[in-house]
Amino acid sequence: MMKQPAELLQLMTLEEKIGQLLQLAAPFFQGADGQITGPMAEMGITEETVRNTGSVLGLTGAEDVINVQKQHLATNRLGIPLLIMADIVHGYKTIFPVPLAIGCSWDLELAEQSAEIAAKEAAAAGVHVTFAPMVDLVRDPRWGRVMESTGEDPYLNSEFARAFVRGFQGKDLVNDVSRVAACVKHFAAYGAAEGGRDYNTVDLSERQLREFYLPSYKAALDEGCEMVMTAFNTVDGIPATGNKWLMRDLLRGEWSFDGVMISDWGAVKELIPHGVAANEAEAAIKAIRAGVDIEMMTTCYSDHLQKLVESKEIDEALIDEAVLRILELKQKLGLFEQPYRGANAQLEQELVSSEAHRNASRELALKSCVLLKNDSVLPLNREQKIALIGPFAANGDILGPWSWLGSKDEAVQLAAGIGSKIDASLLSVTEGCGIETATEEQLKAAIAAASEADVLVLALGEHSDMSGEAGSRSNIQLPQVQLELISKLKQLGKPMVAVLFNGRPLDLHGVIDQADAVLEAWFPGTEGGAAIAELLFGESEPTGRLTMSFPYSVGQIPVYYNRFNTGRPQGAPDAQVRYVSQYLDIPNEPLLPFGYGLGYTTFKYSEAVMAADTMSASEPLQVNLTVTNTGTRAGEDIVQLYVRDMAGDVVRPLQELKAFKKVMLQPGESKEISFTLEEQQLRYYHADLTFASDPGEFELYIGPNSRDVSALKFKLSK
Amino acid sequence: MMKQPAELLQLMTLEEKIGQLLQLAAPFFQGADGQITGPMAEMGITEETVRNTGSVLGLTGAEDVINVQKQHLATNRLGIPLLIMADIVHGYKTIFPVPLAIGCSWDLELAEQSAEIAAKEAAAAGVHVTFAPMVDLVRDPRWGRVMESTGEDPYLNSEFARAFVRGFQGKDLVNDVSRVAACVKHFAAYGAAEGGRDYNTVDLSERQLREFYLPSYKAALDEGCEMVMTAFNTVDGIPATGNKWLMRDLLRGEWSFDGVMISDWGAVKELIPHGVAANEAEAAIKAIRAGVDIEMMTTCYSDHLQKLVESKEIDEALIDEAVLRILELKQKLGLFEQPYRGANAQLEQELVSSEAHRNASRELALKSCVLLKNDSVLPLNREQKIALIGPFAANGDILGPWSWLGSKDEAVQLAAGIGSKIDASLLSVTEGCGIETATEEQLKAAIAAASEADVLVLALGEHSDMSGEAGSRSNIQLPQVQLELISKLKQLGKPMVAVLFNGRPLDLHGVIDQADAVLEAWFPGTEGGAAIAELLFGESEPTGRLTMSFPYSVGQIPVYYNRFNTGRPQGAPDAQVRYVSQYLDIPNEPLLPFGYGLGYTTFKYSEAVMAADTMSASEPLQVNLTVTNTGTRAGEDIVQLYVRDMAGDVVRPLQELKAFKKVMLQPGESKEISFTLEEQQLRYYHADLTFASDPGEFELYIGPNSRDVSALKFKLSK
Repeated sequence: MMKQPAELLQLMTLEEKIGQLLQLAAPFFQGADGQITGPMAEMGITEETVRNTGSVLGLTGAEDVINVQKQHLATNRLGIPLLIMADIVHGYKTIFPVPLAIGCSWDLELAEQSAEIAAKEAAAAGVHVTFAPMVDLVRDPRWGRVMESTGEDPYLNSEFARAFVRGFQGKDLVNDVSRVAACVKHFAAYGAAEGGRDYNTVDLSERQLREFYLPSYKAALDEGCEMVMTAFNTVDGIPATGNKWLMRDLLRGEWSFDGVMISDWGAVKELIPHGVAANEAEAAIKAIRAGVDIEMMTTCYSDHLQKLVESKEIDEALIDEAVLRILELKQKLGLFEQPYRGANAQLEQELVSSEAHRNASRELALKSCVLLKNDSVLPLNREQKIALIGPFAANGDILGPWSWLGSKDEAVQLAAGIGSKIDASLLSVTEGCGIETATEEQLKAAIAAASEADVLVLALGEHSDMSGEAGSRSNIQLPQVQLELISKLKQLGKPMVAVLFNGRPLDLHGVIDQADAVLEAWFPGTEGGAAIAELLFGESEPTGRLTMSFPYSVGQIPVYYNRFNTGRPQGAPDAQVRYVSQYLDIPNEPLLPFGYGLGYTTFKYSEAVMAADTMSASEPLQVNLTVTNTGTRAGEDIVQLYVRDMAGDVVRPLQELKAFKKVMLQPGESKEISFTLEEQQLRYYHADLTFASDPGEFELYIGPNSRDVSALKFKLSK
Repeated sequence: MMKQPAELLQLMTLEEKIGQLLQLAAPFFQGADGQITGPMAEMGITEETVRNTGSVLGLTGAEDVINVQKQHLATNRLGIPLLIMADIVHGYKTIFPVPLAIGCSWDLELAEQSAEIAAKEAAAAGVHVTFAPMVDLVRDPRWGRVMESTGEDPYLNSEFARAFVRGFQGKDLVNDVSRVAACVKHFAAYGAAEGGRDYNTVDLSERQLREFYLPSYKAALDEGCEMVMTAFNTVDGIPATGNKWLMRDLLRGEWSFDGVMISDWGAVKELIPHGVAANEAEAAIKAIRAGVDIEMMTTCYSDHLQKLVESKEIDEALIDEAVLRILELKQKLGLFEQPYRGANAQLEQELVSSEAHRNASRELALKSCVLLKNDSVLPLNREQKIALIGPFAANGDILGPWSWLGSKDEAVQLAAGIGSKIDASLLSVTEGCGIETATEEQLKAAIAAASEADVLVLALGEHSDMSGEAGSRSNIQLPQVQLELISKLKQLGKPMVAVLFNGRPLDLHGVIDQADAVLEAWFPGTEGGAAIAELLFGESEPTGRLTMSFPYSVGQIPVYYNRFNTGRPQGAPDAQVRYVSQYLDIPNEPLLPFGYGLGYTTFKYSEAVMAADTMSASEPLQVNLTVTNTGTRAGEDIVQLYVRDMAGDVVRPLQELKAFKKVMLQPGESKEISFTLEEQQLRYYHADLTFASDPGEFELYIGPNSRDVSALKFKLSK
């Protein structure tokens, strides 16, 4: 019979306890000295430190995990198993679309399934905890990590946060060894990095933080997420990783989170460059006091906590508390009984990139692509000659950032996807240009190919390093060479379809005005080319809808649908010509709004009807409407419901997404859609930060996106 | 003997009291029905309302003011004189450089003098209060009103705020009728409008608000500024004009301000579109409760306060308090005894645009221009043939926004300025293009002129409506036609000087890389052309230094020198190649940094020496250095001292300007410069918002701008 964590804690030396608070990368455990190079070699990690270490990062593969764990149990005095953690963000080896693309699916079930599959593969490969979901709300497409988020809406982000946690953890994390614990990140508000420059300062009022940025973290925790990771940025002048208010008062106090809190990579030591700690000892003090249990990949804790306890600068109780949480997580995962948990080399072999998993990935990719424009050129005709041109025509770099275990070689390239649908004689494939460079020969070949074709399919985009961590761009257009390729090909006057592979909303000038159709494929994952081909040929209907606004230009950032009205809104009935809130040179509206996306059919919405025009806490508002497929193809629309509080205690967004329904309709078919709006959905943070609704006037908007809506008025009574 | 305000208040009806809280524009008082058009005609203002009105906006000219006041005293039952207010921002009729340019002078005495002259002219023209200084801290050059601010530094902005208030109000506002009361604006943080879009949402932590945005308003009040104007934006979710915390708790409570608070134009009624008031009555309630005394140009108070008092929704004491403050200001300005105060038609005639005033304007313009580049082409040689080309070559639109009383016709155009220095045969003047449009003929003429010349002077820029209120641009380059003009002329291979007229920091790509010299003239005011010519020919030395960073591109915004370090700063000794806070495609640094500017000579700074490397509250730090003019011309440098707190309770700026000294040196001359740094200059807002310094390590930087500095270390002991 294993000892309980609290009993175990009693047996541990201070050094052993501190060891539990350290997380080291896989090379430290793999015994190959040669593998530890660069900064890692300079960390001064001794064998003894490794022996006491509590968790490992980035170790995967059942055999390796079992070997490392076995070795660790043999050397750790009390036989405390390692926690094996890894960044399994949008798939383990079967790579799903990037999370921003998954957001655009508005499909919570498939999102959950993607996490479940990632968990299955990872668990079989020995992983216990994944550093996901990332649920940072994002408004700045310059920031490379927008591709890791599901977008700009707190409600939708929260729903996806829950779905991912359910998928990773399942219903019975303790017994279901095919699941992994989730670690929601990055706490908090990392998505608000100033200027979209990664790791940069975040400054927000507590009101903005609570209203927009915090709900998705909270949703993940409400769903039972086991761990939380700190953010690199400051929150109210204090780096998140040393922020006592954020972790002790809010997270552990107000939200009652009692799981394990881990720093992001190196973030404890980064309190020094941030300028809130003069040295590593101070960094350790600030982080442990603020509530960081595990220090990832720096050694402020392991090098200084012992002395700090001995000199009474740190109360050992702080350390005990952190260790206990870590031991409890190990216990919950059953590691004391089954230190290898789900690690199973044979199962791993069967699962990773299995057909079923690839099918699931393709299904989600189908739902994640967003058709942005279509002037009667899509779906493609199988009899046409197609010239597939562009740096992504035959390119496996379509998995996106955070797909370190995925294989680009195994990814279905677009050329292969299209090639599987038509006779080889009808398809020519040529690069046209590189992603950022071009040669005359490439262009010549492309023009020659295009001249022979009936329709051009341009496969364009950003290479995967242009987004993701540290992938900030100040220019959010396609690289210049690709814009030039479009212009040159445009001169041929042939129908032109652009398929885009990228990790952020782009300024699409030069693309959307030139191409007859534009399909935003994001980084679609392992089955990307197959899914896109299905959509291009109309075997499936495009149903994705943007969850992040596409700005008109970089000079319009930030632009997001749930903004405030200002005192001088553009377009008000009594607005003056000049003295309104606007740019002189561009519209206020984004190029493409939140919720936007096309299909191959058309829908008509009936006027929405409310059962009553007044609601209350006890009487929800019922709204019904009928949606009809008025086109000649089957199709799915996402009916979106937004609300506006007309006069609040503080300013309220012009629109807030409150509900959505997917509706699949055959040509000519109609269905009634019904929404129920409850008083609690109208609550928000008042001037004094109390969370409540306001009796009074509201407007409700229903439409296929945030822009093309019909409005109804209703009242909330006391 | 006049009654005291408190006694007068006793005699007033509620309607009369409410009348004092209304401010109407001049046309309502000038009796000409035909002048009241558009929205004003729809305000429903009756003769009786006008009779009771407390103040007027935009009325100037001694005769008009005297007539209106006379008429008013004859019809107002208690004979309460009108307060006459107007936007006298950077000059009355003698227009000074725009405030951002004045900021670049770093010359507090000339700034004060400019306000004094503006006050003199305005006071003689009957004005009692000016809606200035505008002291909003600015970081986003997209915002058109950056030209009204002195820049991005809280210390410098505070010093200018004080200088302007001293200049407007003098030492004895009561008796010196050549002065006007100042009204600092816009309270608060209007400069942080999101996306640089005027009137847009502002969201900041209270820490940012206090550290960066509030000091300049506070400085103006410490200098005795009589009035405060609200901002259009929200502060923590509540429009400033209805923000009780901002006005009651902070301004009147914490800061003990007991003067008059006025809304910005229409801002009370704008609480409705902001969405915090359902109707005008609610807007009135929120504004009066929050502390707005005077409602400018909307009638929520005058149409609703009476009923609200009668129904006991508003306590009459709130109205009494506001009225009393207004009456006290009238009393302080001596209006009960001298209702016309300084209005004097003859004096007005003598003063406005007098030679002395124009000289002062020219002197400040000389100091405000910033030489951004000079590859040995300036100063110009008087024997050379000059082609002056560009839309600002012979253009009087150089006064800038907020110069409504200035005359563009009387402004000294650049052609006239240069023409006064050289023989007419040596100068050709041609447009080259318009500001935003061009014709082939214009270009041809320019190339022809340029071909004949030895040196080209290009006069380029933004027309004055491209900045100023509601003048937001998403693209901050020069208009495309001007960039093309530069490129075309560049092909001639002649020395090329660009003189820029504009209201914001521009992205200077296409200018600074093409021209051999660039002089940023901003909108230099009435004597602009004369001042610029003096600088171009080297009769005066350029000494201006930027007080707002020039971004590398719009995609880099916001960029400002007093930023935080982040946890992963670029350029740190152990920085990784990728995982640092940076853009992939542009530098982190602005194109031109805060404090930057060139002259015609060169300076050498000796190593700075500290008397001791430790300071304390009782022992300030003394730093000395010697500056030597190493060139062949006399010149002035601005020696700048910055500080960094290496480890704070919260993150601290990489640099904070703490002091500067101007030093004028003859060729070969040296002077010793001495700075004294006191403990109180090291204080800042801690995590709990207490204002204190931290014992520990600091760095001190001295240099001619924020980039080119030498560092010293010192300690602050307890």
